[in-house]
Amino acid sequence: MKTILTDTIEVPVRFSEVDSLSIVWHGHYLRYFEDGREAFGKRYGLGYLDYYAEGYLVPIVNIQCDFKRVVRYGDRIIVETTYTPCEPAKINFTYRILNAETGELLVTGSTTQVFLSKSGFTLQLTNPDFFTNWKAAQGLIQ
Amino acid sequence: MKTILTDTIEVPVRFSEVDSLSIVWHGHYLRYFEDGREAFGKRYGLGYLDYYAEGYLVPIVNIQCDFKRVVRYGDRIIVETTYTPCEPAKINFTYRILNAETGELLVTGSTTQVFLSKSGFTLQLTNPDFFTNWKAAQGLIQ
Amino acid sequence: MKTILTDTIEVPVRFSEVDSLSIVWHGHYLRYFEDGREAFGKRYGLGYLDYYAEGYLVPIVNIQCDFKRVVRYGDRIIVETTYTPCEPAKINFTYRILNAETGELLVTGSTTQVFLSKSGFTLQLTNPDFFTNWKAAQGLIQ
Amino acid sequence: MKTILTDTIEVPVRFSEVDSLSIVWHGHYLRYFEDGREAFGKRYGLGYLDYYAEGYLVPIVNIQCDFKRVVRYGDRIIVETTYTPCEPAKINFTYRILNAETGELLVTGSTTQVFLSKSGFTLQLTNPDFFTNWKAAQGLIQ
Repeated sequence: MKTILTDTIEVPVRFSEVDSLSIVWHGHYLRYFEDGREAFGKRYGLGYLDYYAEGYLVPIVNIQCDFKRVVRYGDRIIVETTYTPCEPAKINFTYRILNAETGELLVTGSTTQVFLSKSGFTLQLTNPDFFTNWKAAQGLIQ
Repeated sequence: MKTILTDTIEVPVRFSEVDSLSIVWHGHYLRYFEDGREAFGKRYGLGYLDYYAEGYLVPIVNIQCDFKRVVRYGDRIIVETTYTPCEPAKINFTYRILNAETGELLVTGSTTQVFLSKSGFTLQLTNPDFFTNWKAAQGLIQ
Repeated sequence: MKTILTDTIEVPVRFSEVDSLSIVWHGHYLRYFEDGREAFGKRYGLGYLDYYAEGYLVPIVNIQCDFKRVVRYGDRIIVETTYTPCEPAKINFTYRILNAETGELLVTGSTTQVFLSKSGFTLQLTNPDFFTNWKAAQGLIQ
Repeated sequence: MKTILTDTIEVPVRFSEVDSLSIVWHGHYLRYFEDGREAFGKRYGLGYLDYYAEGYLVPIVNIQCDFKRVVRYGDRIIVETTYTPCEPAKINFTYRILNAETGELLVTGSTTQVFLSKSGFTLQLTNPDFFTNWKAAQGLIQ
C-alpha cells in the first residue's frame, strides 16, 4: 500500500490579485501554490523554517503550471498540495486548484526544489539526513 | 532562411522582489517574462492593447520555468523574448534571462497564450485574421 | 451611545512577502489592510461587489501608515478594521495590526475612499442613497 | 541658496499592476516610490547597499500617499523623488508621480525611514557619521 501525503486549504482571492480582465493574474497562482506548500509543511513538519533550522535553503528550480479555467474575484478556491516522492536530492510537489463550491478543476501545476547549504549556497547532491529521516517517519521509505 | 523574432530588454531587480534568502522570489520571474513580452509586443505590434483593439484577450494557459542561477538585489539582468511560431491558434514565447554583465544564463522559460473573444470569453479554435496577417507581415508565413 | 463598527481577522504572512531583511516589505501591509477591509465588507455588507452592484467604484484616494514594530515570517498577525463615519461622500477606515499571540501593536493606518460612478468614472459629491441607507441600517445615523 | 536634491525616472506600468477597474492598484505606487528612491540612491550614493555596507538597515516607518488621478495600463508615468533634509536621525523623501506626456500630477506621497544597526536591529537615535558626511558632501549642511 502506498502512502500519499497531501493537504488541502482554502485560499482567499484578493482584489489586488485580479487583473484588468477581471481574472486572477497568472503569476499569483505561484503564491497560491506557496500557500499550499506552507500548509502542507505545517501539517507534516516540512516548512521553510524547519529546513532552515536544519541548515538548508530549498529554492525552487522548476515550475510548471496549466491554467484550465479562469478564476474571478469572489470565487472561493482550494489548493490541494501533494508530495511526490523521488530518489534524488529534490523535493517535488504537485498542485491542483479547485473551485471550492463546484469542485471544478481550475489549475494544475508542479514545483521542484533542491537543497542548498545555508552557508555558501552549495547544492547538495545527496539527500540530507533529516530529510531521509522525515521520509522514513512518514512511511514513504523503509 | 528562417525569420526569428526576438527582443531583449534590461529589467530592474526591485528591492521588494528579493526574499529573505536575499535572492529574487521565484514568482517574480513571471513579471520579468511579462516585461519581456511587453517589450516584444511594443516592438512588433503585438501588445495587450493591440489584441484588445482586435477584440481578443490572450490569457496565459501554460508556464514553464527553470531556475539555473540565483539572482540577487543589485544584479543587472536581461530578458530575451523569442516568438515561437506554431500552426494552432496559440501564441508561444520562450524566454532567457541573462546576467547583463557576464552573459551567464540564469533562467529559462516558456509561455503559451490562447485567444478568447473579448465578449463572452469564448476560446477561439482558429487563428484570428489579424494574427495570421501579422505573421505574414513578419515573414513567418507566406 | 455610539455605534462602532469593527472587524478582526487573522492574516497569513507569506514567505514571498518577507524581504531580504527578513521582515515584511512595507508595501504588503496595504494588502493586509485590504484583507481587513474585505472581511469587514463581508460582515457588514459593504464589499467591492456590493458597491459595484450599486453602480459605484470606490478607489482609494489617501493612505497613511505607521510602522511601529517589524513583522517576521512565522509571526501570526491580526488586522482590526474600523469604519470611521464622516458626513462627506467618503469612506474612511482605520486599521491596527497586532501580534496575534502577544497583542503587541505593530502597525497603524488609515484609508479614504471616494465614490465614482461605474460608467464614466465621475466623482460623486454627495453620498449615494444606498450608502446613506447602509449607515442608517447600522445605526450610525438616524 | 538652498540645495535641493531630486531625481526623476520613468517607471513602466505593468499589466499585472492594473486591477479589475483597469487602473493601477493603489498598493503598487509604493513600488513606484521605491523605484524612485532607488534611482535617487544610485545618483546620489544613497542606495540600500550603501546603507548596508555602512552597517545600517533603513526600514520605512511612515508612508503617506494621495491619489489624485487614476493611472491606466499604457500610460507613461514619471516619478520625481526629492530628499527633504531634517535634523533628527531620519531619512525623508517626497514623491510626485506625473503623466510623462501631459505633465499632469497623478499621485503625491512621502516616506520616512530610520536607521537600525544591522546587528541587532537597534534604532539609532543620532545620525550615523556616514550620513552626516553625505549631507555635508551634498552641500545640505556645513
